[in-house]
Amino acid sequence: MLLLAPSERDRLCVVLVSPRNPLNIGAAARAMNNFGFRRLRVVNPYEVAFREARSAVGASDMLRRAAEFGSLAEAVADCQLVIGTTAARKRQLRQPLRALSDGTRLIRRRLGSSRIALLFGPEKRGLSNEDLSHCHWLLRIPTCHQHGSMNLGQAVAVCLYDLVRTRSLRPRPAERKPASAGELEAITLRLFETLRLSGYVNPQSPASTEAKLRRMVRRLDIPAADTDTWFGIFRQILWKLGKPGSA
Amino acid sequence: MLLLAPSERDRLCVVLVSPRNPLNIGAAARAMNNFGFRRLRVVNPYEVAFREARSAVGASDMLRRAAEFGSLAEAVADCQLVIGTTAARKRQLRQPLRALSDGTRLIRRRLGSSRIALLFGPEKRGLSNEDLSHCHWLLRIPTCHQHGSMNLGQAVAVCLYDLVRTRSLRPRPAERKPASAGELEAITLRLFETLRLSGYVNPQSPASTEAKLRRMVRRLDIPAADTDTWFGIFRQILWKLGKPGSA
Repeated sequence: MLLLAPSERDRLCVVLVSPRNPLNIGAAARAMNNFGFRRLRVVNPYEVAFREARSAVGASDMLRRAAEFGSLAEAVADCQLVIGTTAARKRQLRQPLRALSDGTRLIRRRLGSSRIALLFGPEKRGLSNEDLSHCHWLLRIPTCHQHGSMNLGQAVAVCLYDLVRTRSLRPRPAERKPASAGELEAITLRLFETLRLSGYVNPQSPASTEAKLRRMVRRLDIPAADTDTWFGIFRQILWKLGKPGSA
Repeated sequence: MLLLAPSERDRLCVVLVSPRNPLNIGAAARAMNNFGFRRLRVVNPYEVAFREARSAVGASDMLRRAAEFGSLAEAVADCQLVIGTTAARKRQLRQPLRALSDGTRLIRRRLGSSRIALLFGPEKRGLSNEDLSHCHWLLRIPTCHQHGSMNLGQAVAVCLYDLVRTRSLRPRPAERKPASAGELEAITLRLFETLRLSGYVNPQSPASTEAKLRRMVRRLDIPAADTDTWFGIFRQILWKLGKPGSA
């Protein structure tokens, strides 16, 4: 179902640098579960927050298993590729910057053989220049300029989604068979009769009304499977309007 | 920067059906801001949560402007296309189900002319069968089977990202010019000399060591712009090792 094999997904480490909010740590873990990633690393977290996130009701095994590091260098030491996420707004960036979907394509290609670290900075200020200096390149989620900075948990979810998203998840819904022209005409006539009996049709120009209804029914795109139901409906209405048997 | 024009984004209404958690309502609003969507509608929210979300510090104007409705039918009455999001796990679905990226392609095409409602259900149980009956079709974010259900705010973020994501946000980073073979060889020789002076090179087989270093330097992928810096570094090391002027 997902674009990457489990062994490839296991080569990606999500690294949260100095997270402050237990809800965000939990949300990052939940997104990782949703998209099948398992390796969570946390650098120098606000200890209270990390304890709280780990002990929260519903905290995943992964969160409990998350590895904690005292420095970013240690957290990424075993990774062949280190990628930072950034809102990339004011800072002068010294690493190549890629849009998310360009970057994830490169990451997917490398996950076959390399361990990759994907870094997310602390909530308020993002990754520091010192953090970024550990990165081979940077990733930016395309957001509006006025509201560039994303919530941490949402940023993790969007990046991981983009890594695993597939073009066609499952066979497209079968093309439904549309009603035939004959069926549409039968429905048109029933509709016309209904409207005539309802006093909708101008007796001076019934033909133009009929043509208008005909075009309108053609625009409905009625599926063949529904036509019997429509006939039944009109039968009922027409019966009520005083023409039993006319349908 | 984003894939849809502002006028197109303004035709999309994000509809939260019976949300319970003020943080999730706020997170949905933040994601809408991030990706440039403005129309938030809330159906039958848990009142305390909605009040709290609206009055939260940092609540966006959009959240304060969010329209509130007593029923889903009213909330989507002016929309030409109604799409529900679902984890689609146990339920027997009666509407066509599309993977997110297939669905967003259709949505983008329709946003040129139609107002579209994108529905998100309450946190615990998602959209009900009654809610789904208002939908033309359904959208599913491709998640793992064991952990299918996403957090509301993250689901909104992922869907909106997929609507606006572009292939190439900005010009790709310029291909950097690699060092020439001559520059690489000059670096190799300085490295070799450094290691010889350091006692690393086995005097019995210097040639095999040199070849090994040569291959290793070729694998470094050194950019041309960095070669002068490398020369300077070796010059310094070699000077320290007692061979001033050798570089």
